[in-house]
Amino acid sequence: MKHFDYRTRVRYGETDCMGVTYYANYFVWFEAARTEYFRAIGFAYAEFEKQGILLPVADAHCRYLAPCSYDDLITIRTVVSQIRQSSLRFEYHVLKAGCSKPIATGYTVHVFSNRDFKPLRIPEELKSKLELVGLEL
Amino acid sequence: MKHFDYRTRVRYGETDCMGVTYYANYFVWFEAARTEYFRAIGFAYAEFEKQGILLPVADAHCRYLAPCSYDDLITIRTVVSQIRQSSLRFEYHVLKAGCSKPIATGYTVHVFSNRDFKPLRIPEELKSKLELVGLEL
Amino acid sequence: MKHFDYRTRVRYGETDCMGVTYYANYFVWFEAARTEYFRAIGFAYAEFEKQGILLPVADAHCRYLAPCSYDDLITIRTVVSQIRQSSLRFEYHVLKAGCSKPIATGYTVHVFSNRDFKPLRIPEELKSKLELVGLEL
Amino acid sequence: MKHFDYRTRVRYGETDCMGVTYYANYFVWFEAARTEYFRAIGFAYAEFEKQGILLPVADAHCRYLAPCSYDDLITIRTVVSQIRQSSLRFEYHVLKAGCSKPIATGYTVHVFSNRDFKPLRIPEELKSKLELVGLEL
Repeated sequence: MKHFDYRTRVRYGETDCMGVTYYANYFVWFEAARTEYFRAIGFAYAEFEKQGILLPVADAHCRYLAPCSYDDLITIRTVVSQIRQSSLRFEYHVLKAGCSKPIATGYTVHVFSNRDFKPLRIPEELKSKLELVGLEL
Repeated sequence: MKHFDYRTRVRYGETDCMGVTYYANYFVWFEAARTEYFRAIGFAYAEFEKQGILLPVADAHCRYLAPCSYDDLITIRTVVSQIRQSSLRFEYHVLKAGCSKPIATGYTVHVFSNRDFKPLRIPEELKSKLELVGLEL
Repeated sequence: MKHFDYRTRVRYGETDCMGVTYYANYFVWFEAARTEYFRAIGFAYAEFEKQGILLPVADAHCRYLAPCSYDDLITIRTVVSQIRQSSLRFEYHVLKAGCSKPIATGYTVHVFSNRDFKPLRIPEELKSKLELVGLEL
Repeated sequence: MKHFDYRTRVRYGETDCMGVTYYANYFVWFEAARTEYFRAIGFAYAEFEKQGILLPVADAHCRYLAPCSYDDLITIRTVVSQIRQSSLRFEYHVLKAGCSKPIATGYTVHVFSNRDFKPLRIPEELKSKLELVGLEL
């Protein structure tokens, strides 16, 4: 496994009066995809938090290439593309059934932090696992 | 003052592909209106939480009578309609500029709780103030 | 089948600073559950809309019995409990892994409407199917 | 006027269980700020849509520098930083009372489009007005 595919359907409440998904909601999907990425490689992000390790977002970007609508089946293809001392970068491709190209691409950068938002080093066990998993989409 | 009027505009992201406000977002407005209701009578709900007094929702209802759309100017007319030992009931009328009748009505019931969600008695100072303010819309 | 079980995980963005799911988001889950309920009995709500048949919410209620947190696996047990000339009533039980009782219960009432929000009669084919499926949780 | 200041308070539902504002909600604020920016220079975005001119987002970015919490009073300082044939770029500084530096910065790029998401030229009247208003924060 290099990437992880998180599948979901566009909820009604995720659309707006333009008839398509509201732009901020892609970031909600990215977050759900990160949770499942961690689970897929054997970590529960909820457990990190119980140990006082938070992963707040430092940077978030999305490029919107084609819209998607209510009930569309979409896939968030997710990979960790960079591992640093105290940060991680995720990249995302949003795929829609029937479209050969991504309908959106994006990234988020996260800093390992304690509850006071001071940086922490990445847990060694997670780092090793991510390096094993690989960094390409 | 018996009631408090919280004014806001419908945000684009609060609408859905039916072209009108998504039903769950009325509850978000109710919550913003509660915050401003407390402020209007001299309390900051954020301060309650710092003291370990939470007000989770036990019951929530909304009746939708007419839709509202992006950028509509709306008013959430808010009143505390019932005060009990450890609970409060808020009632809401959603008003839209140009409509004589409410476009929605609703209520929420809240239980004073500690951080473990065990019931607490209503703070005496708040109770006195609410009784002074009055309970009718 | 009488009821339909929609399973999802609590997303990070669905929680609030009380540490548990924000109350309005239960209604988002109810909506996702309705979509899957329709699909389970052979209808796509998105298709109704393409034919000009909308199902706006007229009434929504939720009772919150116990909280749920980020990443909790929950089930929205969904049933149509009432079928009228031009309306439907859904009831929901929110179940959490490890809890014997529902952590929340709720209902929504929907009116079959055209694009101008004028009531329509329930499509005959849907009515027959719902009666066949049954109305008890 | 070069920039426009949109003021709002962090709503409870905009926070998450990290105790601070959920990252996707900054984009919701950016959108509310755009609406008020247009109004401040004499245009109603809702009117554009009635004329069949949409402004979907093509690109969105946010850098998170410091967190903000429930009930914090924040300002979204908003400017149009680039005007092209059929696109606009907005930049945003999120300011918090008591903080000298922005707690977040971001941008969005929008493409003038018809209802089928085909690009349109920017309306001449809007272009003239934006050039008059100026492009620096």
